[in-house]
Amino acid sequence: MTVELVRSSAHDSDVVFAARVSTMGEQTLEDAASGVDAGSKDKGLINFLMRDRHGSPFEHNSMTFYVQAPLFVFREFMRHRIASYNEESGRYREMRPVFYVPAPERDLVQVGKPGAYDFIPGDPSLTELAVASGRAVAEFAYAEYQKQLDAGVAREVARTVLPLSLYSSMYVTMNARSLMNFLSLRTKRPESHFPSFPQREIEMVAELMEEAWKPLMPLTHAAFEAGGRVAP
Amino acid sequence: MTVELVRSSAHDSDVVFAARVSTMGEQTLEDAASGVDAGSKDKGLINFLMRDRHGSPFEHNSMTFYVQAPLFVFREFMRHRIASYNEESGRYREMRPVFYVPAPERDLVQVGKPGAYDFIPGDPSLTELAVASGRAVAEFAYAEYQKQLDAGVAREVARTVLPLSLYSSMYVTMNARSLMNFLSLRTKRPESHFPSFPQREIEMVAELMEEAWKPLMPLTHAAFEAGGRVAP
Amino acid sequence: MTVELVRSSAHDSDVVFAARVSTMGEQTLEDAASGVDAGSKDKGLINFLMRDRHGSPFEHNSMTFYVQAPLFVFREFMRHRIASYNEESGRYREMRPVFYVPAPERDLVQVGKPGAYDFIPGDPSLTELAVASGRAVAEFAYAEYQKQLDAGVAREVARTVLPLSLYSSMYVTMNARSLMNFLSLRTKRPESHFPSFPQREIEMVAELMEEAWKPLMPLTHAAFEAGGRVAP
Amino acid sequence: MTVELVRSSAHDSDVVFAARVSTMGEQTLEDAASGVDAGSKDKGLINFLMRDRHGSPFEHNSMTFYVQAPLFVFREFMRHRIASYNEESGRYREMRPVFYVPAPERDLVQVGKPGAYDFIPGDPSLTELAVASGRAVAEFAYAEYQKQLDAGVAREVARTVLPLSLYSSMYVTMNARSLMNFLSLRTKRPESHFPSFPQREIEMVAELMEEAWKPLMPLTHAAFEAGGRVAP
Repeated sequence: MTVELVRSSAHDSDVVFAARVSTMGEQTLEDAASGVDAGSKDKGLINFLMRDRHGSPFEHNSMTFYVQAPLFVFREFMRHRIASYNEESGRYREMRPVFYVPAPERDLVQVGKPGAYDFIPGDPSLTELAVASGRAVAEFAYAEYQKQLDAGVAREVARTVLPLSLYSSMYVTMNARSLMNFLSLRTKRPESHFPSFPQREIEMVAELMEEAWKPLMPLTHAAFEAGGRVAP
Repeated sequence: MTVELVRSSAHDSDVVFAARVSTMGEQTLEDAASGVDAGSKDKGLINFLMRDRHGSPFEHNSMTFYVQAPLFVFREFMRHRIASYNEESGRYREMRPVFYVPAPERDLVQVGKPGAYDFIPGDPSLTELAVASGRAVAEFAYAEYQKQLDAGVAREVARTVLPLSLYSSMYVTMNARSLMNFLSLRTKRPESHFPSFPQREIEMVAELMEEAWKPLMPLTHAAFEAGGRVAP
Repeated sequence: MTVELVRSSAHDSDVVFAARVSTMGEQTLEDAASGVDAGSKDKGLINFLMRDRHGSPFEHNSMTFYVQAPLFVFREFMRHRIASYNEESGRYREMRPVFYVPAPERDLVQVGKPGAYDFIPGDPSLTELAVASGRAVAEFAYAEYQKQLDAGVAREVARTVLPLSLYSSMYVTMNARSLMNFLSLRTKRPESHFPSFPQREIEMVAELMEEAWKPLMPLTHAAFEAGGRVAP
Repeated sequence: MTVELVRSSAHDSDVVFAARVSTMGEQTLEDAASGVDAGSKDKGLINFLMRDRHGSPFEHNSMTFYVQAPLFVFREFMRHRIASYNEESGRYREMRPVFYVPAPERDLVQVGKPGAYDFIPGDPSLTELAVASGRAVAEFAYAEYQKQLDAGVAREVARTVLPLSLYSSMYVTMNARSLMNFLSLRTKRPESHFPSFPQREIEMVAELMEEAWKPLMPLTHAAFEAGGRVAP
């Protein structure tokens, strides 16, 4: 899984300007006169906005990511309706034979109750079995896909035999508020009031997005973390 | 593919009431006094709203459908962000072995340019090949899925070997405006200013939804058809 | 301010059905076999969905309200983008001379910091002053509005002299998830992790909507209250 | 009314890249090999996307505008739910006495049917009357506003006497798809299949936004105009 930040216009200062037009006008002038340091005032304002769920100032920015991940990750990703997507299409192009199999560090044994699963390592042979099984299906399915294409079956029908482990790619564009909402649901946050239980593979994508976002808007990111990583 | 209208609160009269609060107040009283037939006035108002793209009056209603279709259809469906979805989850339950293969009447040969594909029948042997290939992958993949589950691999990992032809089910809730937007993009409308080129399988779902919607809001549906089936 | 529930299709059972399609399939069968009471199971499921922020099952329902309130309330209301609106239009009809003035129980003295204002009663003469001032402006402005209309100025221009205290009316349609989000921001919840500081007048509208919603979906409402009234 | 483009990340090339990930992969390589000029290919692709209503590639960009306009314009503007807003707040700051009155070139006489009004010039005395009336209300209302503030009435209550002609300011952020949708409804397009009848004052804001957008994405803008200015 890879995430590349393709383009962005996202700064903590955008949050501050947007908030000041609505809430802080006269207040700000007083503070400035009283000599409070500008940097610490921005931080205070952003913390206040996050804590009191003033969400709209976090929307005046934009980040476009190029994401490569398997279809089962994209299926979960695209349930998030406050983002823009363009994905590689199996109707318009022939899909390449790149498939997900679980890495050795992927814990494969599920424990706990529905909705709150936890995962623990199994015997190493379990990973071997899952990898071999995943590869066998990938090879078998891709060969059938090729056979159908060679015979003249339309791409949009032939692709239906490909498994959910198939890699695809997409551009996804979000603003910081949407991204924080996404992160709050798709990364683990045991310290939060609102624990979440994401599938590890989408969490890996989410973590890479968070890493790319953090240096762009460090004050916003810090406020998000301090608030138990719940979006405003 | 099946579509069942599970619950609805959707009437042409909802459109009329919502429109009258905003636009028609005093006008309406005059018309009523002048003896114009109420039914034909409703029809005229709905036609006017549709033609001049007053979209919001078409939103005060709700339809919930239960849809059964393959994953590759749901992938396209869920790109529509103005609807509510709950789908069967391969994380929480074991998926059942029901798979899509193309029916004899499904034209499998793609002609035309990207973005404007057309489909024509091929030799019957092409369908036989596609069906046999689809079944072979389904059987192989489902057996591997079972093998992984039996060995103790977590459902959320094991499911990644299942192909896009797997059937799933979902509840989807939309209002008439969203539904018209969906239909305008996912059914063919050669007579329209804006032709669309949906994959046949999602069009089949869309057609079933349109059939279920039509008797609920006959005036709205007629206006939608008359307007080249473009949503306001 | 008045709120009338015009139409609804909203039941706790809709939440349960939507959730079960995705998350609870096989689990449910086991529970049923083990003799757990169905009513308490529904309640448990709804509480679980609310607590763990599974928001989508709360979207498969719909409520349409007819709201009468002043323009300054509607200005705040319509910032909520996940609802459908049709409001009385000053372009299409002549506005009626109904205006807001503060009631005696409206606390008029603002204390506290920006973003966290509190309000306390002032001297009764303060209310008298505000009411007299509000009425004077309403009468003066409405007379000028009439003068412009009589002279032949277009309604859409003449209306610009009317004050924000003018009453208007609208249809607004929301699902339970949107409504909970609205309530979490527009009613006071001192007990919550996330306090909010709504203007009293929109809170009055929100409270009336909550009253109308509560008997439709009592389990959902109880779970919302128990969770500090934060939307999932 | 003023519009300032504060920040943008919006280029025709963003549209092209996003479209190519989904639809054009292999096609593009062939074209490149065959020596077609890249510039004209981009133009062709953008025209194709616009005509066939492939809307999502137009979403991977962002523009933030600072808009100053009267409240009655903002009331219409904020009905557009696919944008981000932060407006000056009468709860947090004292509003400045700046008010709209119709300019001499504003046609004040409304003719035609509801929903399709047209406006023609009246006698110059009509403008004089409207201006004098607008000023009288503004002065009267603002003096009462000040009186209430001086007496200690909370800003959020005192502001309710201010008229809809009051100027306010906001940050609004949109992507090109949202902007095109906004422009298609809020500017006149007599040549289109879908005429619109915006109030002149919001159309002035929309025209300024269109002017600011046009040089950023000239190919997209040209395709939008050529298509009767209907958003995809």
